[in-house]
Amino acid sequence: MDKPVRHFQEELDTLFARLLEMGGVAEERVRAVVQGLVTRDPAAIEKVMRGDEPINKLHIEIDNRCFTLLALYQPMATDLRAIVAAVKINTDLERVGDLAVNIAEAAHRYTTHAPVKKLIDIPLMGDVAQGMLRDALDSFVRRDTQLAQQVLNADDRLDGLKTQVFRELLTFMLQDPSTVEPALDLILISRHLERIGDHATNIAEDVIFMVSAQDVRHHAHDTSG
Amino acid sequence: MDKPVRHFQEELDTLFARLLEMGGVAEERVRAVVQGLVTRDPAAIEKVMRGDEPINKLHIEIDNRCFTLLALYQPMATDLRAIVAAVKINTDLERVGDLAVNIAEAAHRYTTHAPVKKLIDIPLMGDVAQGMLRDALDSFVRRDTQLAQQVLNADDRLDGLKTQVFRELLTFMLQDPSTVEPALDLILISRHLERIGDHATNIAEDVIFMVSAQDVRHHAHDTSG
Repeated sequence: MDKPVRHFQEELDTLFARLLEMGGVAEERVRAVVQGLVTRDPAAIEKVMRGDEPINKLHIEIDNRCFTLLALYQPMATDLRAIVAAVKINTDLERVGDLAVNIAEAAHRYTTHAPVKKLIDIPLMGDVAQGMLRDALDSFVRRDTQLAQQVLNADDRLDGLKTQVFRELLTFMLQDPSTVEPALDLILISRHLERIGDHATNIAEDVIFMVSAQDVRHHAHDTSG
Repeated sequence: MDKPVRHFQEELDTLFARLLEMGGVAEERVRAVVQGLVTRDPAAIEKVMRGDEPINKLHIEIDNRCFTLLALYQPMATDLRAIVAAVKINTDLERVGDLAVNIAEAAHRYTTHAPVKKLIDIPLMGDVAQGMLRDALDSFVRRDTQLAQQVLNADDRLDGLKTQVFRELLTFMLQDPSTVEPALDLILISRHLERIGDHATNIAEDVIFMVSAQDVRHHAHDTSG
């Protein structure tokens, strides 16, 4: 029994390493596209728009690894929970990659208009979303439910920023019709960033469920942070 | 071996029945909220806004069923694929429930303004999205890859409608600032409906993967339909 068990552990470690790698790529894409938007750099934006391939490849590879682990080793209890969580996290990270593309498309349109305003809250939303992604994945690998809880709390901050962005841009649109199109794109971008936070939240909830076998989903979470 | 195998099959059938039930609830919520929007019926809209509990309960129950099946029976090959697909489909349906709430929130705001226009394309988007959900779940239960392929093709129609809705509402916003707020809500609603179609597409892709073990994700799909 010793050898297959050791082999299983190695395969599991590789799975986690690949998930972290994918998380790093997703995070970097979010950073790059928000940076491209702020600096109005069409080349940087286009690079994100066309660069979804590495994440899609990792998505398929990780899915296959999960299947193989489930089929060959028939893991129990904790390991089973971790692998099912990995299946879900993999899906969440793939969507984050898609959302980076959606942000790039809106940013591309935005740069064809005069800037509506100096961007402050949107880069802030980008920072928060990136931090949430990073913390969510760290909490998965370290089985750290406290860190996962912090991710849930950060989501409220992201929602607050999104509402603020929306109200401010609405004022611009009502005052000056020439801002309607670019302001709409900024609103869409803020919603895409919010959804990235939602995916980080999903990951954090899966971690808490995995570690404590306590289901925090569909319950009010602590908003004191 | 006979008894546990029979028991497994019964449990698997119950799992599929619950998924179908959840799909039915999700579809009905989409129908109800679009109907409430078209008829400007605040009570119907509010009912959807507050009625996410049954889907959330099913979500947790189905997740637990998947876990139990994986842990107790350690299924192989086809059954393993079906259960992992069920984990993912369960997540997609839960998000559809969330999106129905998002639509209800925007619809609620919309009804506080004068109508921007007679709604034609948005109810059409609702019909297409509901049909996609229904077909995607049918294709899962019947392991029908042809039907799953039809879901993928319908997604292009939904995208086309979304673009049409966006362009038309943009024209209104540019011509008359008093339409900016309600038109924004209609744009958001059309995007939520598009995302419901995306979830149906995810389910259809999982079905094709499950049945044919061929990965259609991240590849161009047939758009001839």
